[in-house]
Amino acid sequence: AQPAKLLVLPGDGIGPEVMREVGRVISWLEKNRGIAFEITEDLVGGASLAEYGEPIRNEVIEKARAADAVLFGSVGDPRWGHVGFDKRPEVAILKLRQELELFANLRPAKVFDALVDASTLKPDVVRGLDIMIVRETVGGIYFGDPRGIETLPDGTRRGINTEVYTTPEIERVARVAFEMARKRSGHVCSVEKCNVMESGLLWKEVVTDLHAREFSDVKLTHMLADNCAMQLVRNPRQFDVIVTGNLFGDILSDLASMLTGSLGMLPSATLGAVRADGKCAALYEPIHGSAPDIAGQGIANPIAQILSFAMLLRYSLNLQDEAKMVEEAVSRVLESGLRTADIMSEGMARVGTSVMGEAIVREL
Amino acid sequence: AQPAKLLVLPGDGIGPEVMREVGRVISWLEKNRGIAFEITEDLVGGASLAEYGEPIRNEVIEKARAADAVLFGSVGDPRWGHVGFDKRPEVAILKLRQELELFANLRPAKVFDALVDASTLKPDVVRGLDIMIVRETVGGIYFGDPRGIETLPDGTRRGINTEVYTTPEIERVARVAFEMARKRSGHVCSVEKCNVMESGLLWKEVVTDLHAREFSDVKLTHMLADNCAMQLVRNPRQFDVIVTGNLFGDILSDLASMLTGSLGMLPSATLGAVRADGKCAALYEPIHGSAPDIAGQGIANPIAQILSFAMLLRYSLNLQDEAKMVEEAVSRVLESGLRTADIMSEGMARVGTSVMGEAIVREL
Ligand SMILES: CC(C)[C@H](C(=O)O)[C@@H](O)C(=O)O
Ligand SMILES: CC(C)[C@H](C(=O)O)[C@@H](O)C(=O)O
Repeated sequence: AQPAKLLVLPGDGIGPEVMREVGRVISWLEKNRGIAFEITEDLVGGASLAEYGEPIRNEVIEKARAADAVLFGSVGDPRWGHVGFDKRPEVAILKLRQELELFANLRPAKVFDALVDASTLKPDVVRGLDIMIVRETVGGIYFGDPRGIETLPDGTRRGINTEVYTTPEIERVARVAFEMARKRSGHVCSVEKCNVMESGLLWKEVVTDLHAREFSDVKLTHMLADNCAMQLVRNPRQFDVIVTGNLFGDILSDLASMLTGSLGMLPSATLGAVRADGKCAALYEPIHGSAPDIAGQGIANPIAQILSFAMLLRYSLNLQDEAKMVEEAVSRVLESGLRTADIMSEGMARVGTSVMGEAIVREL
Repeated sequence: AQPAKLLVLPGDGIGPEVMREVGRVISWLEKNRGIAFEITEDLVGGASLAEYGEPIRNEVIEKARAADAVLFGSVGDPRWGHVGFDKRPEVAILKLRQELELFANLRPAKVFDALVDASTLKPDVVRGLDIMIVRETVGGIYFGDPRGIETLPDGTRRGINTEVYTTPEIERVARVAFEMARKRSGHVCSVEKCNVMESGLLWKEVVTDLHAREFSDVKLTHMLADNCAMQLVRNPRQFDVIVTGNLFGDILSDLASMLTGSLGMLPSATLGAVRADGKCAALYEPIHGSAPDIAGQGIANPIAQILSFAMLLRYSLNLQDEAKMVEEAVSRVLESGLRTADIMSEGMARVGTSVMGEAIVREL
């Protein structure tokens, strides 16, 4: 078999140190499961700005295109707060999404039984929580034109952004959500602000039509974004799959993941259209950011990054067994009582990034 | 003294029944405090659609302009889901905000000691919570042009909305937030998505400049909207005043109010520019919606509507003592153990809308 071609982009902050622990898992799989990987690593975000003066090089985008999958760390660094809007570290992830047409960001918010007390919500409200947010990631107000800041003749400045969604853009992401729901609890909740935004009205209509045409076995409900934020706090277990646009998805998925109390545990996948070679472009990254405040201290939780790699094994390499092995190793390590600082609780054993990584490999 | 001219707009769903309880408070103030009110009542939302075929008449907007303050119930009714975008009940509140230039929506999220257990968050996380969200309400993506749904030559449909903010629009609402913070804990957190939206970048710059020029005694911090949603769940007591745009404010203020677990308790005020007569237009409404599922059953909580009226006394009529009397009467009724269904807990006495209203008047 061909080796699996991965592009690894650790990025900024804690990215490199949590990515190092994935390296251990990869070595283990090579040695013990005979899986061949061909790994290329490169710089993105602040790290790329420092070296090359831009947040991501075209060369890196071409490497991403050629890879079977991209494993991404995180970008963002306050030291680059002064660079222009086009040069900020975040451009790296935005460009990757757009250039590879990675339109469906899958963000699970799942409460691990061992960590139910980590949440700021009452255990009864979040126990067993398992939500999948499907967020559109190449359209909406993130990318619409016109955009920018202009100065009017009288000196007033105007900032402008445009939210645009077209029928096919809405359909393809809704399709991912409906298919996802079929493998889960069979319920999709579509979220917009159709009472104030026409783009939300179109969103609702297109999702409703697609549902009637192809997915009437799935239960479909609709919710306004403000109400969804409330319902996520009031009774989050009412949700199975939530599908929504880029901006609402950004906010609601972060909210949902914080309900679990353990951001350092949550992976995500962003999938693209099926390519000529029959595969689909895909990028895997933890939900958490670059956490510059704790970077370099060896205390970051590597689990979200390792579980992102498990998602990669499952979705991009079709290695179901190996994905499961990694996920179960993580569960067992948690059950054994090891905790990084972010998920520490009384009576548990506090460990650093590399001890956690080693323990997971030992469980494998 | 001139009588205070109020326009009362009960609206849809539970609006009329909770507004009736405010009527009792008004009567009490007339009889016992010698305050003269001149009250006009009219229809808005679904109620106006049923009678006049439009969600709000120009005549009602003119009455609102002529009044010292507007006391609003709530609009929204699933029976009007089929009417066109321009006719939906929500247009009533959107038009009032825009026509009267009600640009600063003040939404407190406050946890009452007696109700700390009503939250889905752990008591330790929310006890003493007291946030004021200042939301811009006449600009942003709610009102920007171009907007609408268009069909392209190939049949594809496109939904479009435009987010626009100008320097003066940002400045005036930020000023309200800074002034508010001076009377509270002296901290403003300004929220946008400046890492993906230029309108957010301008927002941040304008707030920063105004702060440096006029409010350097207040502490100013900045936060991205996705992070703010997370921080509201993780540690909501880090906030004092939050200032943000129309769309983020819609979502984040609903989220913040749900942290309290008692939406039926929370009032809001929306203030406009100072007018020629030295007064400023103002509208007061509960945070909760029209709750059509429980309308007409006499079980809705009237407290948010009554506290909205207390805000009206304070901000529009400068009746500080009377505002305080009403607020304290509400606190005492809660301490005495009376609860409507939405805030019911073990060992308390469950009552309906009018018993709650009567009890508050008795405490006065
Ligand atoms: C880094 C930033 C541009 C990004 C976004 O807003 O999409 C991040 O918040 C995310 O959710 O992946
Ligand atoms: C009714 C609706 C148009 C309104 C809004 O979105 O502003 C409501 O949700 C609010 O927050 O007051």
